Amino acid sequence: MIKNRMMNKIEHIGIAVKNIDESNSLFTKLFGEPHYKTETVESEGVKTSFFKVGDNKIELLEATKADSPIAKFIDKKGEGIHHIAFDVDDIELEAKRLKEEGFIVLNEIPKKGADNKLIVFLHPKTTNGVLIELCQEII
Amino acid sequence: MIKNRMMNKIEHIGIAVKNIDESNSLFTKLFGEPHYKTETVESEGVKTSFFKVGDNKIELLEATKADSPIAKFIDKKGEGIHHIAFDVDDIELEAKRLKEEGFIVLNEIPKKGADNKLIVFLHPKTTNGVLIELCQEII
Repeated sequence: MIKNRMMNKIEHIGIAVKNIDESNSLFTKLFGEPHYKTETVESEGVKTSFFKVGDNKIELLEATKADSPIAKFIDKKGEGIHHIAFDVDDIELEAKRLKEEGFIVLNEIPKKGADNKLIVFLHPKTTNGVLIELCQEII
Repeated sequence: MIKNRMMNKIEHIGIAVKNIDESNSLFTKLFGEPHYKTETVESEGVKTSFFKVGDNKIELLEATKADSPIAKFIDKKGEGIHHIAFDVDDIELEAKRLKEEGFIVLNEIPKKGADNKLIVFLHPKTTNGVLIELCQEII
């Protein structure tokens, strides 16, 4: 395995869905294995489920309220890939480095996300239309 | 590493870009490392570049002609994530399994893609709006 100096791997891909129960069935058929956990993050207005694919994860995201980021995303673009999350060792240092490189860091102070992670988002305007999340396991 | 029975890992994420040279610079800043190879796939009308992130890859895709799938994608949706590719051991068997599960397999006979791979696509209509590629290394 070639280790990228700053980002360790694709930790997960987040997929926005309208009905997480139906999508859980669909992705269970796709992967041949069910999701291994669910979690609701009240602060983000989102209900999630996680599937394991090797050393990577797929996170399904359903909005729990009409004004949450996922609800707005689906209203605008429909269901589909919402973000890519990269695993990092030092999220504050990495956010600082990327800001200095000219990326727009949406929250410079990492916030608590799903799956016991600290997370920081980069604005897709500076990343070719891709919403990028940095995430670091909370130890 | 928990091994999914059918899909081994996220092999790569394909990102549609308008100008691959500019995007190569951007993603080099993002990852702190340059792309390690480029490849043009004439049959798909696409020029690609690959970045390594741990055991996963990011593939940038620029259209080489106006009627290629990537050109059409950007016209419709703008730059952004185009597909997720999962590594499989037996692509024909996996395509057959997924067809039987109700997914629309776009090409049942695997075709040659970039990076020395056989590839099969699933229609996003049956996968929550996500274009999914299966890929198998050609040995």
